[in-house]
Amino acid sequence: MKIVITTYPFGLHDPRPTEKLKGFDVSFNDIGMKYDKETLCNILKKKQPDIIIAGTENYTPDVLDLVPNLKMISRVGIGLDGIDFGECKKRNILVTYTPDAPTNAVVELTILQILNMLRKIQQVHMSVSAYYKWNRYVGKELRDCIVGIIGCGRIGTGVIRVLNGFGVRKIFINDILPGKMFETVNVTPTTCKDIYATCDIISLHIPLKDQFVNNTDFVDYDNLICMKQDVRLLNMSRGGIINESALYMWLKDHKKACAAIDSFDTEPYEGKLRELGNAYLTPHLGSCTFTSRLDMELGAAEEVVRFINHIEPINKVI
Amino acid sequence: MKIVITTYPFGLHDPRPTEKLKGFDVSFNDIGMKYDKETLCNILKKKQPDIIIAGTENYTPDVLDLVPNLKMISRVGIGLDGIDFGECKKRNILVTYTPDAPTNAVVELTILQILNMLRKIQQVHMSVSAYYKWNRYVGKELRDCIVGIIGCGRIGTGVIRVLNGFGVRKIFINDILPGKMFETVNVTPTTCKDIYATCDIISLHIPLKDQFVNNTDFVDYDNLICMKQDVRLLNMSRGGIINESALYMWLKDHKKACAAIDSFDTEPYEGKLRELGNAYLTPHLGSCTFTSRLDMELGAAEEVVRFINHIEPINKVI
Repeated sequence: MKIVITTYPFGLHDPRPTEKLKGFDVSFNDIGMKYDKETLCNILKKKQPDIIIAGTENYTPDVLDLVPNLKMISRVGIGLDGIDFGECKKRNILVTYTPDAPTNAVVELTILQILNMLRKIQQVHMSVSAYYKWNRYVGKELRDCIVGIIGCGRIGTGVIRVLNGFGVRKIFINDILPGKMFETVNVTPTTCKDIYATCDIISLHIPLKDQFVNNTDFVDYDNLICMKQDVRLLNMSRGGIINESALYMWLKDHKKACAAIDSFDTEPYEGKLRELGNAYLTPHLGSCTFTSRLDMELGAAEEVVRFINHIEPINKVI
Repeated sequence: MKIVITTYPFGLHDPRPTEKLKGFDVSFNDIGMKYDKETLCNILKKKQPDIIIAGTENYTPDVLDLVPNLKMISRVGIGLDGIDFGECKKRNILVTYTPDAPTNAVVELTILQILNMLRKIQQVHMSVSAYYKWNRYVGKELRDCIVGIIGCGRIGTGVIRVLNGFGVRKIFINDILPGKMFETVNVTPTTCKDIYATCDIISLHIPLKDQFVNNTDFVDYDNLICMKQDVRLLNMSRGGIINESALYMWLKDHKKACAAIDSFDTEPYEGKLRELGNAYLTPHLGSCTFTSRLDMELGAAEEVVRFINHIEPINKVI
């Protein structure tokens, strides 16, 4: 069985995920960053894997056509938007993922970026470096804010738990599955429209696409202009959930508003949001902690070993 | 009664504190920053106030000599290190402060800087601006850390409350008054020596000086070298508690360690810590939120009005 690891990093900070795959024919991503489509196709064509340990690359029919032997995609992470489920099913390709591993790392980045935006820390950091200025920016306290959480799955409920530790005044929530809200306390279910109109902080914790939903352009210009002038908006989920061009236009004209974005339509991101002081950009750091990476990589490697040994997978998608 | 407001800002973001003082002879700090000693002395000599609404300036005997009519110092904020209590007592000058107002703002900045250091967000922000690089820094999760809190007063206990919301693994605490710890849950009292040796994060929430203690150089080079190689150290309290030159030398030689410093020996700070990527510096932002500033300024103004109307002060220091 030939295993190709397309994601990067893998086994970089802890040897255990690589050790799990000892004895198998494994090749690693050696360019140190996410493959673009051309590189991915070249690698797959050349290596002809039976199993891919995948990152966020897109596995569309034309890519899958290049690997007729492929039997399994073991996704390091949770987002499944890059995978064409229908095609994988048709071709009898098993897809697994590691849905629990990144949860806490993303929760902590979300809280971090909420606080950063409230205290203008990006502006502070900029002024600290080359030309330190003693600008005592007056910020806002999280405790005083009304927070809206859209999507109350693993990450959304984790964020709510921490927000309660801060004693946040009011938390509005919205989820397509009302039953999911049972794990949250001190929250008020409401519509997205009401969240847009009333919240000081709005954080999205929904998938871009999976077997059941397509949340592309979930937040578009029409929604953005309904938000408060000084709203802090977060997308720590997936690029595409907030329309990037609409966000750029809106942030440019609404300097008091602020958005923290961790993932983008195309990564590495090279777009226009980089020009804006009120865009707090991070390079898809959500899951980038030692614990989360280890759990994701180990989880993905273990699914591969299970598959090879004909053992039932733990987190099978299709 | 002549009132001189030396602190800045005052009444800038909300008119209510200034409105409280309507009808009195009030002058404001119009240079938009903290007075240096020379400016302070010139202003005081010229204005001859009965009452000072003060920031963190130093009121030493030679400064007090310039204002023989002074009857009250109403401190906007909590730190009292700048005030010579013996001299004020001798001269029959009432000193009040606003100890509760900044608590939550400082708690939130502390948590923010802990998370920033764990995820290397300063480096991310630097790379985002001029030359955005797709560096997926792998960080550490707060939940996995052992945290040491030295000083369990208003702010220290607030920090512990929020840390518990994050589900932090272990919290060690130390306070000179063991009785103060009753308000904290899930904590283990221990010595400072043990905190230095075992904690991943160490945050100081002690005064520099007050009537009872002098914590100058509380953390010196000898203490720093006992800490973990990748410790995250915070001083959101007062400059001087961690010796600045020792901290510079130590951070320079220990690149995996990191310190977040919000207040300095001399402010505005222009020292060598600015050269270091592992020094997360903020310009004394602890209390800089709208709520905290409003509560501090309003509290200080109300103490002045009480004094003028011969009503007992609420937060009298001496």
